[in-house]
Amino acid sequence: MRYELYYWPSIQGRGEFVRLALEDAGADYIDIARRPRGMAAMMRLMESTAQPPFAPPFLRAGTLLIGQSANILLYLGSRLGLAPKSEPGRLWLHQLQLTIADWVVEAHDVHHPIGSGLYYEQQKREAKRRAEDFRINRLPKFLDYFGALAAQKRRARISYVDLSLFQMIAGLRYAFPREMARLERRRAWAAALHDRIAARPRLAAYLASPRRIPFNESGIFRHYSELDR
Amino acid sequence: MRYELYYWPSIQGRGEFVRLALEDAGADYIDIARRPRGMAAMMRLMESTAQPPFAPPFLRAGTLLIGQSANILLYLGSRLGLAPKSEPGRLWLHQLQLTIADWVVEAHDVHHPIGSGLYYEQQKREAKRRAEDFRINRLPKFLDYFGALAAQKRRARISYVDLSLFQMIAGLRYAFPREMARLERRRAWAAALHDRIAARPRLAAYLASPRRIPFNESGIFRHYSELDR
Repeated sequence: MRYELYYWPSIQGRGEFVRLALEDAGADYIDIARRPRGMAAMMRLMESTAQPPFAPPFLRAGTLLIGQSANILLYLGSRLGLAPKSEPGRLWLHQLQLTIADWVVEAHDVHHPIGSGLYYEQQKREAKRRAEDFRINRLPKFLDYFGALAAQKRRARISYVDLSLFQMIAGLRYAFPREMARLERRRAWAAALHDRIAARPRLAAYLASPRRIPFNESGIFRHYSELDR
Repeated sequence: MRYELYYWPSIQGRGEFVRLALEDAGADYIDIARRPRGMAAMMRLMESTAQPPFAPPFLRAGTLLIGQSANILLYLGSRLGLAPKSEPGRLWLHQLQLTIADWVVEAHDVHHPIGSGLYYEQQKREAKRRAEDFRINRLPKFLDYFGALAAQKRRARISYVDLSLFQMIAGLRYAFPREMARLERRRAWAAALHDRIAARPRLAAYLASPRRIPFNESGIFRHYSELDR
């Protein structure tokens, strides 16, 4: 099956969680909006289908059109060998992915606490307050939740949740280098997981390729020094 | 199967989306934390299980413990007759529920734009700005997305997504009575859907019972007059 991924072409964003799974599995896929006239194709599809997604990313898989990144991973997981086939195993992984999705919203809203349609510069003062709350209260809470799971998990099979956790750690390091350096001092699992995932042959090749869009200040994870520790 | 629902006992919150499905289906369930010593049982379970949820609500179904409200509804949907059994149908409904979950976060963050651990009074000024953005830009966008789907759907079977949309409309009317009155003037589908769901016999009985916790200023939907139009 050749998959079609639809997502904004200039940011990693929420599409990246899907891309990492497709790349790690060596899946056959086209990143539609990054091809010539791809953006127009994406917008046209959103407007013409009877079951439109609220927003990108969405995935075309044969006759299916699937939106919401966690939902896409729910669909792809066992097909790509990145999730178990049993219902309990799938529900548990999906639950973790939805918790990551909540974390993503909070990581984004650090720089957009007032409105996603406004510029960062229009909400800088509020962003500073929100960033402090995020770094002090929320970031350790999410890290320790997943850290406790990593500790009991040991050598289990890699799942799409592990790939997404890699992305969270990489993104948070980019956005908050000082705070993450401090937090990771007593959380060795984070670097271990990050490096283990980054070293997987297909992912290592992907991360070194032009297909991996660099982090930038239009995405979820943005580096604004004044929001860091 | 007797289900056990675990959620904070004094608010509707995210637990309500699950409650509405259980009530509408006439399912056998216990609302654990609302019983004597129920809160202690909930906290104990969160700390003792090998697969802990990040936060309530979660559902015990036999040996399964399922967290994240949309994930719980994914599990319950076809079992309660509130979702199709086919994979495409289930994925589509779940996609809509995840979009509602995003909407819930935004409805909540209106009064908590800086931090969920702070009081509203500590972020009133920021809340006012966020509320304006939410009412003007986000609320119509979400309403019109679901309105367009309602228009093409006509007499399809009721699903758990319809129950959740009822809850959104009821909650948003509570929080923003003036803005919703204005927005609903040209969106008749909202009242039609709300009333159609509220009139379902089991739900009507539930909504009139003490099991339905009233909206209040500790939940997701809060009425602060200064945040309304």
